[in-house]
Amino acid sequence: QGILERLDAGEIVIGDGGFVFALEKRGYVKAGPWTPEATVEHPEAVRQLHREFLRAGANVLQTFTFYASEDKLENRGNYVAEKISCQKVNEAACDIAREVANEGDALVAGGVSQTPSYLSCKDKTEVKAAFRQQLDVFMKKNVDFLIAEYFEHVEEAVWAVEVLKESGKPVAATMCIGPEGDMHGVSPGQCAVQLVKAGASIVGVNCHFDPETSLETVRLMKEGLQAAKLKAHLMSQPLAFHTPDCGKQGFIDLPEFPFGLEPRIVTRWDIQKYARKAYDLGIRYIGGCCGFEPYHIRAIAEELAPERGFLPEASEKHGSWGDNLSMHTKPWVRARARKEYWENLKPASGRPYCPSMSKPDGWGVTKGAKELMQQKEATTEQQLKELFQKKK
Amino acid sequence: QGILERLDAGEIVIGDGGFVFALEKRGYVKAGPWTPEATVEHPEAVRQLHREFLRAGANVLQTFTFYASEDKLENRGNYVAEKISCQKVNEAACDIAREVANEGDALVAGGVSQTPSYLSCKDKTEVKAAFRQQLDVFMKKNVDFLIAEYFEHVEEAVWAVEVLKESGKPVAATMCIGPEGDMHGVSPGQCAVQLVKAGASIVGVNCHFDPETSLETVRLMKEGLQAAKLKAHLMSQPLAFHTPDCGKQGFIDLPEFPFGLEPRIVTRWDIQKYARKAYDLGIRYIGGCCGFEPYHIRAIAEELAPERGFLPEASEKHGSWGDNLSMHTKPWVRARARKEYWENLKPASGRPYCPSMSKPDGWGVTKGAKELMQQKEATTEQQLKELFQKKK
Amino acid sequence: QGILERLDAGEIVIGDGGFVFALEKRGYVKAGPWTPEATVEHPEAVRQLHREFLRAGANVLQTFTFYASEDKLENRGNYVAEKISCQKVNEAACDIAREVANEGDALVAGGVSQTPSYLSCKDKTEVKAAFRQQLDVFMKKNVDFLIAEYFEHVEEAVWAVEVLKESGKPVAATMCIGPEGDMHGVSPGQCAVQLVKAGASIVGVNCHFDPETSLETVRLMKEGLQAAKLKAHLMSQPLAFHTPDCGKQGFIDLPEFPFGLEPRIVTRWDIQKYARKAYDLGIRYIGGCCGFEPYHIRAIAEELAPERGFLPEASEKHGSWGDNLSMHTKPWVRARARKEYWENLKPASGRPYCPSMSKPDGWGVTKGAKELMQQKEATTEQQLKELFQKKK
Amino acid sequence: QGILERLDAGEIVIGDGGFVFALEKRGYVKAGPWTPEATVEHPEAVRQLHREFLRAGANVLQTFTFYASEDKLENRGNYVAEKISCQKVNEAACDIAREVANEGDALVAGGVSQTPSYLSCKDKTEVKAAFRQQLDVFMKKNVDFLIAEYFEHVEEAVWAVEVLKESGKPVAATMCIGPEGDMHGVSPGQCAVQLVKAGASIVGVNCHFDPETSLETVRLMKEGLQAAKLKAHLMSQPLAFHTPDCGKQGFIDLPEFPFGLEPRIVTRWDIQKYARKAYDLGIRYIGGCCGFEPYHIRAIAEELAPERGFLPEASEKHGSWGDNLSMHTKPWVRARARKEYWENLKPASGRPYCPSMSKPDGWGVTKGAKELMQQKEATTEQQLKELFQKKK
Repeated sequence: QGILERLDAGEIVIGDGGFVFALEKRGYVKAGPWTPEATVEHPEAVRQLHREFLRAGANVLQTFTFYASEDKLENRGNYVAEKISCQKVNEAACDIAREVANEGDALVAGGVSQTPSYLSCKDKTEVKAAFRQQLDVFMKKNVDFLIAEYFEHVEEAVWAVEVLKESGKPVAATMCIGPEGDMHGVSPGQCAVQLVKAGASIVGVNCHFDPETSLETVRLMKEGLQAAKLKAHLMSQPLAFHTPDCGKQGFIDLPEFPFGLEPRIVTRWDIQKYARKAYDLGIRYIGGCCGFEPYHIRAIAEELAPERGFLPEASEKHGSWGDNLSMHTKPWVRARARKEYWENLKPASGRPYCPSMSKPDGWGVTKGAKELMQQKEATTEQQLKELFQKKK
Repeated sequence: QGILERLDAGEIVIGDGGFVFALEKRGYVKAGPWTPEATVEHPEAVRQLHREFLRAGANVLQTFTFYASEDKLENRGNYVAEKISCQKVNEAACDIAREVANEGDALVAGGVSQTPSYLSCKDKTEVKAAFRQQLDVFMKKNVDFLIAEYFEHVEEAVWAVEVLKESGKPVAATMCIGPEGDMHGVSPGQCAVQLVKAGASIVGVNCHFDPETSLETVRLMKEGLQAAKLKAHLMSQPLAFHTPDCGKQGFIDLPEFPFGLEPRIVTRWDIQKYARKAYDLGIRYIGGCCGFEPYHIRAIAEELAPERGFLPEASEKHGSWGDNLSMHTKPWVRARARKEYWENLKPASGRPYCPSMSKPDGWGVTKGAKELMQQKEATTEQQLKELFQKKK
Repeated sequence: QGILERLDAGEIVIGDGGFVFALEKRGYVKAGPWTPEATVEHPEAVRQLHREFLRAGANVLQTFTFYASEDKLENRGNYVAEKISCQKVNEAACDIAREVANEGDALVAGGVSQTPSYLSCKDKTEVKAAFRQQLDVFMKKNVDFLIAEYFEHVEEAVWAVEVLKESGKPVAATMCIGPEGDMHGVSPGQCAVQLVKAGASIVGVNCHFDPETSLETVRLMKEGLQAAKLKAHLMSQPLAFHTPDCGKQGFIDLPEFPFGLEPRIVTRWDIQKYARKAYDLGIRYIGGCCGFEPYHIRAIAEELAPERGFLPEASEKHGSWGDNLSMHTKPWVRARARKEYWENLKPASGRPYCPSMSKPDGWGVTKGAKELMQQKEATTEQQLKELFQKKK
Repeated sequence: QGILERLDAGEIVIGDGGFVFALEKRGYVKAGPWTPEATVEHPEAVRQLHREFLRAGANVLQTFTFYASEDKLENRGNYVAEKISCQKVNEAACDIAREVANEGDALVAGGVSQTPSYLSCKDKTEVKAAFRQQLDVFMKKNVDFLIAEYFEHVEEAVWAVEVLKESGKPVAATMCIGPEGDMHGVSPGQCAVQLVKAGASIVGVNCHFDPETSLETVRLMKEGLQAAKLKAHLMSQPLAFHTPDCGKQGFIDLPEFPFGLEPRIVTRWDIQKYARKAYDLGIRYIGGCCGFEPYHIRAIAEELAPERGFLPEASEKHGSWGDNLSMHTKPWVRARARKEYWENLKPASGRPYCPSMSKPDGWGVTKGAKELMQQKEATTEQQLKELFQKKK
C-alpha cells in the first residue's frame, strides 16, 4: 500500500531518523558540507543504518540524497572525489534504500532539499532544474513517493513541490522552520497553505528545532490549513536535541552546533512523550531528523504500539519502560524498572561548570541585517550576508 | 607486530569503543543483560561497528564477547535463543573481529569479563572453568592477545589473568574501579600489583567512570607499581559519560543509568583532552568503553596524530578542530572553525529543569552494608545484598 | 519640589526597595500575612531600613503601609495584637517615613495596595471605603504624594486611583502584572490607559516579576498609552529575583516562594543593567520591590550617576564596578576590579543538585479554572478557587 | 552565667551572624577593606544589626571589631577618616554590643582577627602588640569573653590566643580553614591541638567555607583533639554561601567573590540542616559568619528549640517550616505549609545561562607558587606572591 492509502486509512506512519549526523559519528559524512557521497563510497554503512531504522519500526526509508543536488555536490567538490557524479550518488541511494526496504514492509521515499542555487539567487528555472535532475533518478529507480524537505524559504519549497508533482507520485513537504515562520517571515500557517496549494499531500516540519518546538510549528500549520479550509496529512521530523534556547534560525546558531550538542541529546523517554503528543495533535507521519538514532525511532514505535497493534523487530532487544532492569542484582537498580521512574527522571548533565541554556550566535548580525533591510540595500538573505561582511 | 612489540617500542596503541551501548542504541543488544548473542543473530551489525572503529583509528579489535561466559548466557537465558551456545557466540565473535581486522592493520584481542559464578560465591575452580571455556575458543581462533576486563573484584581478575596466561599469549587486565579501589577495598595500586604479579603485561581500568576519574585511578595504579618496583604497560578505556557525581561503584548507581545518560555524553573535544592527558601520564594503550562511539575513537587518533605521524581513515571525513566550518555561509558559524572555540566551549544541556549532578542511588544501602560487614554477618557483596533485602 | 515637578523637569526619581521581604529577614514581618504592624511594634527597625534606602539614593520613601487596610489587618488578626488599630499602623508609618525623609532630600509617598474586600467580591463602595480610611491618615500626616500599588486587577486599581485623586495630590499607580496583563486578561496597554484616565499621573508595574520581564510590561504600557494618545510618567519597581520561569501570576506560583528564593537574588550588576535599560526605555521613576535591599537601590543610583550628576551617600562605602578590590593582596582578586569582569560574570549557584528553572505550581489549577470559566460556573477568581477546591 | 559555665552545663550557645557582609549591603562597610569604622560613623546601624541577631536568638554578641587592629585600619587609611582612632573604633564597638546585650540575655565577646603585620612578616612581638592594643580596650570595657577568629595561619592564631589569655577571661579560637588545613599545611587536627595548648577553651572554624565543609573541618579538629587526649568545646561559624567548588583558600578565590555571591546564599532550611548536623557532631557553640543574616540565626534557634526548650523572640514573626502559609488563598501555596516540602525543595536559580559551579581563580598561581617554594626562593605566602608578580 502506498503512503496516501496508509494515511487515508488512518494508519500511523513512522519515519526514519537522521542520516547525516549518525553517519558523521560513524565516520562517513563530513560535518559542514553534510553531503551523501557515502552511498557510493561506503554503501555498506548506509545500508546498515537503513536496516537499523527499519528494524526500529520505520515504515519509510528515505533515500540518502540530502544535499545531493548537483550544485551542492559541486559546491563542496573539494570533499567529494570528482568521479562521483550527482547521478551516481542519487542512484546508489535509491538502490540501497530499496534493497533494505525489501527486507521488511517499508516504502522508499526520494528526497530533495534546499539548494545553493536558490540561496545564491538563481532564478526559478535553474533551481527547478536541480530538483528535476534528482527527480529523474527517483523516477528511473521507481521510488514510492517523494519528499521535499529542509527548506528555510517557502518559495523554494513550493518550487520543489511543483517539480516533484510532475511525477504523478504523492509528495510530502517539510520545512525546517519554527513557530516564527520562514526566513522571509511567512508564518507556518501560510507556509502550509502554499505547500498544499502547490500539490503537497503531506506537510509539516523537519530539523532545526526540538520535538516540542516542532510540534508547536505543526500545530500552527494545522490551524492555517483549517482556516484556509484545506486538507492535508501532517508530518513531523524534528531534531533529537533539546533546543529551548534557539532563535528563529534554529540550532545552527546555537554555539554548540555542530560539535558540542551532546548534552542536548534527547532520551528515549523524551521521544515517547513526543510521539504521544504528536499523535494527540493529529500528526500521523511521525519520524525524526538530525540526532535521531535507531533507538529513538524505536521509542516512537513503542509508544504508539497500543494504537498500531504491534511492536517493531528491534523491541525484541528492549523492554518497555525499562522493565528488563527488574532482574538486576542491585535492588536500587531494580527499582528503576517502571514507567513512573523514567517518565519523571530529570537527568543530570554531569557538567557542573556548564550552563543549561545558551544565547544563540548571530543575534547582532540579525539586528544589523534588519537595519540593512530597512535601508533597502538588500532584499535577500544572501545579499544581507554579503553586505554585513563588507561592513565588518 | 604483536601488542607487546608495539608497546615496548613506544608506540601508541588505540583501543576500540563500547559495543554493548552502541549496539543497544542500534537495536541489537538488550540493556540489563548486555549479552553479545548479536554475533550470531546479526553478524552484519557487529561487523559494521568493528569496521567503524577500525576506520576511526583502533589498532585493536576486541572480540564482542563481553558477558559471554556460559554462566552469564544461561543466567540470561530468557533473552537468548536456546540454540545459541556459548561456544557459537564466542566463535562468531572471533571470526567477525578477524575478518574486519584483516581490512586494516589491527590486532584481535579475545576478552573475558566478570562472571555471575564469582558473584554468587562459586569457588575458584568453577570460576576459572568459565574463563577457560572462552579461552579455548580464543586459542582455536588464534586471537593475537587476551584481555581480562570489567572486574570489580581484584581476586576474580587475578583468577582470570591466571587462566589467560596458560595460553602463552600476552594478557592485559583492566578493572572497572575508581580511585577508591575494588569492592573489597583493595586500592588501585594494590590491584595493579596483584594483576602484574599474576602475569598481566598491561594493566589499567575500563568502564564505570568518566575519563578524568579513570585517569586518576590509572595514576594511582602507576604509583603502586612504581612503589613495588614492578613494570607494566598502562591502559585506559573509560566511559564516554561525565560522571563527577559517582560513588564507589560508578555509573551503575547513578539514577540516569542506563536509559537517561544522554546529557552526560562527552564531546569529541573532551576526548581529545582525555587522550592528551592519558598520553602525558604515560598511558600508551588508550581506548574507550561504554558510550564511546567511532567518532570518539577518532578523536583519540586525531589528538595523538602528531606523535603517531598519521591520521586514521575516518579523518577524511573530519576536519581538525572544526576547520571544515570555515566554508559555512554564516560568518558566526565560520567563527567556530578553530581550536580555541571548541576547547573553551561550555556546552549547554538545553535542559533548564534538570540539575547538573545527581546523588547516586544505593548510598543508604552501602551504609547499611558497611554495618552488616562490621557485624560479620556477611563477607561477600552478594551476601550483603541478600541480607540487606531481608532487613528491608 | 514635588514628584511631578521633578519628573516634568526630566529628573530621574529613584524609588526605595522592598520592606516586607527585608524586614521578614530581619525578624519583624511575618511571611504569608506580610502586614506592617512593625511600624508600631518596632519603629526603630522600620526607621533604620528607611534610612538605609535614603542613604542608598532613594528620592521617595514610601510609608510602610503595604497591606495596611483595615480589612487586611483584621483578616490577619491572629498575627497582630488586637490593640494595634489600622489607624495607628498607618499613622506610625507616616511619622517614621517623614522623620527619615527630613534627614535628606526625599519625598514621602503614602501607599495603598490590593484589598481582601475586592478579592471576596465586596462592592465598589466598600472597597473604596477601605482606601479612603488609609487616605484620611495620609492627608492628616500630609504625605507628599500617593501610590496605588500591587494590584492584580485593573478594576480595583482604578477604584484606588479614584479615591486617591480625591485628595488633590499627585497619584502614581503600579500593577503587579506581567506582559500577559491583569488577572481578568486586560492587557498592560489597556491597564495603563484605564489608570491614566482614572487620574494617575505616573503608571507602571511593581513586584511579581523580575526586572527584565517588568520592563517588557512597562514597554507594553507605554505602547498602549501612545496608541491612545495619553501622556503619563512611567515607573518600575520589580522584584530583585530572577524569574524567567514565571507564569501569569508571577513569583507567588514558583515552588520557591517565599522561603527558597535565595538562588534567584539578583546581583548589583544585574541591577545596573536594569537601571540602564529602564532609563533607555524612558522610565524615570525607577525603584524596586520585594528582594531589593539597600545595595540594590544604590546600584540604580550609581548606574545613573552620570545622568544625575552625583552619587548617593552610601557610595562612600562602595567602589564603582568593584574598583576597591584593586588593593587586594591576591593578584587574581585584584583582577576583578573592573567593569568588564562583573558585567560578564555568570555567577555559579554552588548548587549542582538544583535545576536552573522551575515549573510554576498551579498550572493544572489554572487549566481547571479555565474550563470552569467556560462552563459559566464561575465569573470571579474567588469563585473559581472555591469551585476548584470543591471539585478536589 | 559565663560562656564556659553555659557550655560546661551542656547548653547550646548560639552565635551571631556576619557583620561585614550585612553592613556592606546596608551601606555602611566597604567591601575589600572590610573595616568596622561604622561603630563610630553610624552606631545606629551597628546597634540595629546587633539587636536583630539578639532577637533571632543569638546568645553572644561579638563586638564589631573585625579587622580593627591598628595596622589594618592604617593600612586602609584612605577609607577611614583620619580622626577615627583604632581605640575609638574598638571602644564604640564594645559600648554598642553591651548596650544591646543588656536588652536580652546575651554575652559580649571581644574579637580579634588576623593582621597585616603577620602577613608582611613582622615578628611575634609586633604582631602580639597589635592584639594587645585591642585587648586593652576589651578589658577596660569588660567584655565577657574573647574570640580570636579568622586566622589562615595557626601560628598567628596561637599568638593571638596567648595574648588574649593574659586577660584571664575565657578564650575561643576559630580559623578560616577547610579540611586541607592552614596555609602552611598544618592539618585541622593539629591546628586544634595547638590552639588548645595555647589556652583556648573553645576551638573551631569560621568563614571561608560553607556549612557542610566547615562541619567536616570541625570534625577533623575533634578527631585531632581526641587523638591528643585534649578537651575543648567545639564551635562553628561558617559562611551562609554554598561553596562546594572552593579550593584550599575558600571563597575568596571563587570568581563570584565578593560581588556575585547571591546565587550561593543558603536558605533557612539549609541552616536548619546545618544546625542539626552541627549539634549531632557535638558542637555546642553554633553561629555564622559572612552571609548569615538574622533569619539564618533564627533558623538555628528554631531547629534546636526542642533541645533548648524555647523559641527566640523573632519567631513571633515566623511559622515553623512555613506553617503560616496554611492560610494562603491559593491551594498550591497552602500545600507548601509543611516540613517535607521545604526540606526536599531543590531551589532553582532562575539563571539558565549560568553554571552551578565555578573553578576558583588562582590555581595557576598556586602551581607557580609551589614551584617557587621548591626552588627555595620563598618561604612565606607573602614572598610567594611577590615573586609570582615579578615573574608576571
